[in-house]
Amino acid sequence: MTDPEGPSVVALGGGHGLHATLSALRRVTGDVTAVVTVADNGGSSGRLRGEFGVLPPGDLRMALAALCGDDDWGQTWARVLQHRFDGQGEMKGHVVGNLLIVALWELLGEHVDGLDWVARLLDARGRVLPMAITPMDITAEVRGADPAEPDRVSLVRGQVQVATTAGRLTSIRLDPPDPSACPEAVAAVRAADWVVLGPGSWYTSVIPHLMVPDLRAALEQTAARRLVVLNLGEQTGETSGYGPEDHLGALFEHAPDLRVDAVLVDPTSVRDHDPLEGAVASAGARLVVADVALGDGTPRHDPVKLSRVCARIFGNVSGSAAWR
Amino acid sequence: MTDPEGPSVVALGGGHGLHATLSALRRVTGDVTAVVTVADNGGSSGRLRGEFGVLPPGDLRMALAALCGDDDWGQTWARVLQHRFDGQGEMKGHVVGNLLIVALWELLGEHVDGLDWVARLLDARGRVLPMAITPMDITAEVRGADPAEPDRVSLVRGQVQVATTAGRLTSIRLDPPDPSACPEAVAAVRAADWVVLGPGSWYTSVIPHLMVPDLRAALEQTAARRLVVLNLGEQTGETSGYGPEDHLGALFEHAPDLRVDAVLVDPTSVRDHDPLEGAVASAGARLVVADVALGDGTPRHDPVKLSRVCARIFGNVSGSAAWR
Repeated sequence: MTDPEGPSVVALGGGHGLHATLSALRRVTGDVTAVVTVADNGGSSGRLRGEFGVLPPGDLRMALAALCGDDDWGQTWARVLQHRFDGQGEMKGHVVGNLLIVALWELLGEHVDGLDWVARLLDARGRVLPMAITPMDITAEVRGADPAEPDRVSLVRGQVQVATTAGRLTSIRLDPPDPSACPEAVAAVRAADWVVLGPGSWYTSVIPHLMVPDLRAALEQTAARRLVVLNLGEQTGETSGYGPEDHLGALFEHAPDLRVDAVLVDPTSVRDHDPLEGAVASAGARLVVADVALGDGTPRHDPVKLSRVCARIFGNVSGSAAWR
Repeated sequence: MTDPEGPSVVALGGGHGLHATLSALRRVTGDVTAVVTVADNGGSSGRLRGEFGVLPPGDLRMALAALCGDDDWGQTWARVLQHRFDGQGEMKGHVVGNLLIVALWELLGEHVDGLDWVARLLDARGRVLPMAITPMDITAEVRGADPAEPDRVSLVRGQVQVATTAGRLTSIRLDPPDPSACPEAVAAVRAADWVVLGPGSWYTSVIPHLMVPDLRAALEQTAARRLVVLNLGEQTGETSGYGPEDHLGALFEHAPDLRVDAVLVDPTSVRDHDPLEGAVASAGARLVVADVALGDGTPRHDPVKLSRVCARIFGNVSGSAAWR
């Protein structure tokens, strides 16, 4: 059902959330660009970043895997990319796609060229770009990181540490602050028909894009319409106690000038409609409530359901039942 | 100049020698199969073999790289396959193609399937098979391994140790002895029009094929014609002091029933014609003396020159100047 003449869509995020969006979007249009956070400091990515001084490749690799086709070729290579070595030695925990990406970076000396080559290898259904051209860390102000002092605000450093804190995040910063955006990512946002933000780890995969000055400016100024896909639930640590309206609120706190055209939410994650409708209306956006959950008990989106709803939203079928 | 309807050619060897043969053969015919030694115990291959209990992938990876096409795609992927990580950490010395091959083996659980998939990824101009389906070690009887005792014969174990011994090899064995051949390799040899042995590290990359019972039987019994491509010189350690006729002699010592149809030698490596012509004649073969050296001072074959001479030999142009 992919429309090769479909809209130009840029999806911003990282990790499993972006994987879901891209798996949906490649079913909708032949023109997909992923813009990916580059602050990961854990696992295989953290080790490679430490060893080679490159961008952490993990979220980029996961985005490339999501853009692999449904044919035998695409699905085999998606599995290869995502394969994590087991064993008991030095390779344990490393992921094949991460190593392939780092190898291309070493050979070509250029992040975007290397990613474009890997995408070509896989016959990926789109382009994958980093949000910035230098690795960075996320630091967060956290209230109650130490359960013994629930009201104390402290600074937590590192994507892994922030994503798993026991406290409640109040804001994030990037270190170094104001990093240089990836120029190709900025250009893609400016040229897009639609920009999609979320779902994903809200503070460590979605909001970081708004902390990169040139990328935030592009998101604010682009003629593209903007869709926010809300998470299917709160995320322990990062967004404990957050409702959908709190997710939206956190976004606007970090980018007050961002306009949003549509907000997509699954009905199961809406506890109370009024505050959400209020938050969406005050952003000047339309609320779309639609079944997009995988429905297996995990807070994951179903790529096929999500693709159908996205197609309706992009087609701007305002009379559709998907629109409220 | 590759002839898609060209003869079916199987090349046996390992390492840089097989890389040269395959780089030549893929220019001659569209039907090339590489059969590769699997006794490497050094470097990235040795580490992966130790960590995962798989076949050492290095020589297989080099063969796949040699079969990559001359277009931008093929040459980029050849470089990626061969890329060796630098850095200072756990990845140092590992080769990308080795990791890719091991990942496919882990995913598919089958050596030949995994190699076929990597070949498909690369759009390789042929198939790469291991000579046996279990990893093995090479042991060698060496005279004068210890320079202090030049006449003492001792046992040296391991491909790396054998290939770099200070003494003179007298014979090799495989451990475990009589390994099971790769059935697809045996079938390829039996179905071939031509089989090519050498060049390469004579005792550790060429002769091991003759120590695998089913493979030796196939080489002896196949209706294919057999071409031996001699090395461009002696190899310090392994074949110190060997002339071309000594290389041939070592081959027949390990496989007395092997018949050979043609022996190709570069004129620069022939010090004395008579013993070589004698050895070739007593094997019932024809001697082909032709310029196939890269000519850069290294003992390496030029793939383009080698491809032209192989095409003439396969074409059986008996009146050609290439035939003596």
